[in-house]
Amino acid sequence: MLNYDLTQRGNTPLYRFLYSCIRKDIETGALAADTRLPSKRRLAEDLNLSVNTVMTAYDLLVSEGFVYTREKKGYYVSRLNYRAPKKKARPPKAAEPEERNWFMDFRAGHAPLDLFPTSLWAKCMREAISAADSLYTTVSWKGLAALRNAIAEDLADHRGMTGVSPEQIVIGAGTEYLYGRLMEILGPGITIAGADTGPSKFAQIAANHGSRWCYIPVDEKNMRADCLAQTSASVVHLSPANLFPYGRSMPIDRRIAFFEWANAAPSRWIIEDNYDAEFCFGPAGHRSMFSEDAHEKVIYLNTLSKTMVPTLRISFMVLPEALLRRYEETVSFYTCTVSSFEQYALALFIERGYYERHLFRLLHHYRKLRAAILDEIQHNPILSRIAEVADTDAGTHFLMTVHTDLSEAEILSRAEARSLRFHFFHPKYQKPRPGEVQLIINFAAIDESRIPEVFARLGAVFEG
Amino acid sequence: MLNYDLTQRGNTPLYRFLYSCIRKDIETGALAADTRLPSKRRLAEDLNLSVNTVMTAYDLLVSEGFVYTREKKGYYVSRLNYRAPKKKARPPKAAEPEERNWFMDFRAGHAPLDLFPTSLWAKCMREAISAADSLYTTVSWKGLAALRNAIAEDLADHRGMTGVSPEQIVIGAGTEYLYGRLMEILGPGITIAGADTGPSKFAQIAANHGSRWCYIPVDEKNMRADCLAQTSASVVHLSPANLFPYGRSMPIDRRIAFFEWANAAPSRWIIEDNYDAEFCFGPAGHRSMFSEDAHEKVIYLNTLSKTMVPTLRISFMVLPEALLRRYEETVSFYTCTVSSFEQYALALFIERGYYERHLFRLLHHYRKLRAAILDEIQHNPILSRIAEVADTDAGTHFLMTVHTDLSEAEILSRAEARSLRFHFFHPKYQKPRPGEVQLIINFAAIDESRIPEVFARLGAVFEG
Repeated sequence: MLNYDLTQRGNTPLYRFLYSCIRKDIETGALAADTRLPSKRRLAEDLNLSVNTVMTAYDLLVSEGFVYTREKKGYYVSRLNYRAPKKKARPPKAAEPEERNWFMDFRAGHAPLDLFPTSLWAKCMREAISAADSLYTTVSWKGLAALRNAIAEDLADHRGMTGVSPEQIVIGAGTEYLYGRLMEILGPGITIAGADTGPSKFAQIAANHGSRWCYIPVDEKNMRADCLAQTSASVVHLSPANLFPYGRSMPIDRRIAFFEWANAAPSRWIIEDNYDAEFCFGPAGHRSMFSEDAHEKVIYLNTLSKTMVPTLRISFMVLPEALLRRYEETVSFYTCTVSSFEQYALALFIERGYYERHLFRLLHHYRKLRAAILDEIQHNPILSRIAEVADTDAGTHFLMTVHTDLSEAEILSRAEARSLRFHFFHPKYQKPRPGEVQLIINFAAIDESRIPEVFARLGAVFEG
Repeated sequence: MLNYDLTQRGNTPLYRFLYSCIRKDIETGALAADTRLPSKRRLAEDLNLSVNTVMTAYDLLVSEGFVYTREKKGYYVSRLNYRAPKKKARPPKAAEPEERNWFMDFRAGHAPLDLFPTSLWAKCMREAISAADSLYTTVSWKGLAALRNAIAEDLADHRGMTGVSPEQIVIGAGTEYLYGRLMEILGPGITIAGADTGPSKFAQIAANHGSRWCYIPVDEKNMRADCLAQTSASVVHLSPANLFPYGRSMPIDRRIAFFEWANAAPSRWIIEDNYDAEFCFGPAGHRSMFSEDAHEKVIYLNTLSKTMVPTLRISFMVLPEALLRRYEETVSFYTCTVSSFEQYALALFIERGYYERHLFRLLHHYRKLRAAILDEIQHNPILSRIAEVADTDAGTHFLMTVHTDLSEAEILSRAEARSLRFHFFHPKYQKPRPGEVQLIINFAAIDESRIPEVFARLGAVFEG
């Protein structure tokens, strides 16, 4: 009994190997409950071990409850109603999911990565690595002060948002993350009104946090403020810079209507989701509602993942005073989700003007690209006849209406055969008109040299 | 009328400056509603501008809704019920909150940072910077495959968790973050049972996600499984490796009791919070409940922020198959919150064995430190008489019971005078016994050379 081959132990200490062998026998039932184990001395002799080694193993089994002792009688196997699971084989390694390599994926919303100033970013990261405190500074729940200062400066210098205090800024690992925190301080049980421009990820986050989302019709001025009165919404989610996928900036009278709605009750708030607002091709640039808000009703939300690289997860929000206090009371126990090192590197990148310079180049690139694409569409023999592009001046996408009798399923399969991929636009309440479909064209990722071929293929999808 | 000083425009284009001036006059009411603006030609003459410049400014004002046109009559000021907020001055910059420099802060739970192999970590980060795909790889919602593979290997090689597939691992920016996602897939409206060892941050996260938390009494074997039956809990939150602040590992019979409870209903789950489990000073090391679970009932949760540096926000969880599917269906739309660059660097750090080597050194350091501290307490003329330390073998803290008639408030003020800071231990249901107080002593941050002085001061707090 208890005859173990100790040569199998490898690097495991003797006592530990012995402990494992006995434990395994107990777990498998090879050693039945209440069996008396051999005395320490006896087992030591049997296995040619020191008594101390056996004692350590026995004590361990006792302390973990696999074995019990009876005074002056020795060690016994505990009665355990338990079978340990079989030791599993090592499962295979994971691989990054391989994406099909489309000739053109109109769902991809990001600029070609060679437009990103990788070397400048690497420079900032290298400096951050060398700066000891980038790793060790304890960061406030709001995020690193240096990054909040850099963002506040940038908002003042380049977005017309002069009054933002760095103390109002909260940094988090992505807009979705910050939205979850917002749902915690505003909800649960509230209703958020969002534009009816297809299913929204934010609606899902709201639902997962116990709140409701209602879709509001849109017109040419953005979401219809007059429809709010028929809902129980206390929060409205707006993209005044450009309403996806229309790319329209909201005019002042509509903005005023939302301000009036929000000002009418203390529990009402406007979430200004400024995603993609950096890319305004119109002459005036974008005016944020935050900067037009006289009554501290606007929560400003933006991301740096869209303008930098998508795998960098840094977003921020600017909270009005009252919500900042509520945030502090309710959810400031959450540690800031962005590593201080990356905040440090990004603060350098912004402070030194690299960020604005990069944005400026991107905007220039997108403006040229967009013009070339619209021109191509106008001159494409097929698309010029059947396609209309909404005349917009913002964002890295546009809506294309195509007059066709093909079904969406037919179109998708013809597109796939030509290695093209896109989404159709499906607002919840606005039914598609017969004889036409609406495509969302993200143009950010299109390589300029491929434009003719891309739209020749797109035209061919609808031919015949 | 409309007499603007165009020399004030700085770098702003002329049309844009003119637009801003008129807009400001409209916003302030200097230009009343329905006022007719001068014709383009007239204003161009007045201000010595080209007609084109004026037209661009007017068109912009029209498109934004500040001005309207009447056919063949010209441009008029819109009627807007709105006063723009005054442009605010730049608020002051933020500074990192300055912490008082305590002689000893027993609340600080982290090792002195000079124990962290900064140069090896910097090496991995530098390599990650050079590897182009570290920045550009699109990461699965679960996290970077390379990091999930490295973690699965580490669990198998060093934690006895051989069966974990990298596909079961979900990476997130901190344990709090992952806990929130868990609350979304398990809740809302559930009850989670946690050990009654003082207020828990997880209880707050559960409440913020619409679920309840109930505190369960503990005994020397960890949380009492027999008390679960009296609750409506469907999820139990356990720290089997060491129950804060007792530092006791849970014996097998109690583990079995929890498994039996969980196996009795399909909606029941065990969250194994393995925080601090790397630091087990006992001979056997820590056995995770995850590896003992034969019925896929355990959600394993751990953080790398505790063993690396606290400002690196990377935690992970291992989900049983059924919950993995639910996670995928419900919350996999959330983008992974950790930047791919940091995941890449950490994968290198683990793969190359730096992580295990660092852990080994830390464990050795803590073991020595702990022994020296316990020895010091035994030889301190005051503490040796009045203080008892729970005899535990895990974790970077211990519980110290001090027999004293001083009130907690008195103790705190005397401690502050000696530049010491600590928490008292306040379980919810376990009332303190008269004539004693319980201190939580985090020893991770104590500098070995300071041990005599630290405990001399602590002893003096309780003296006469």
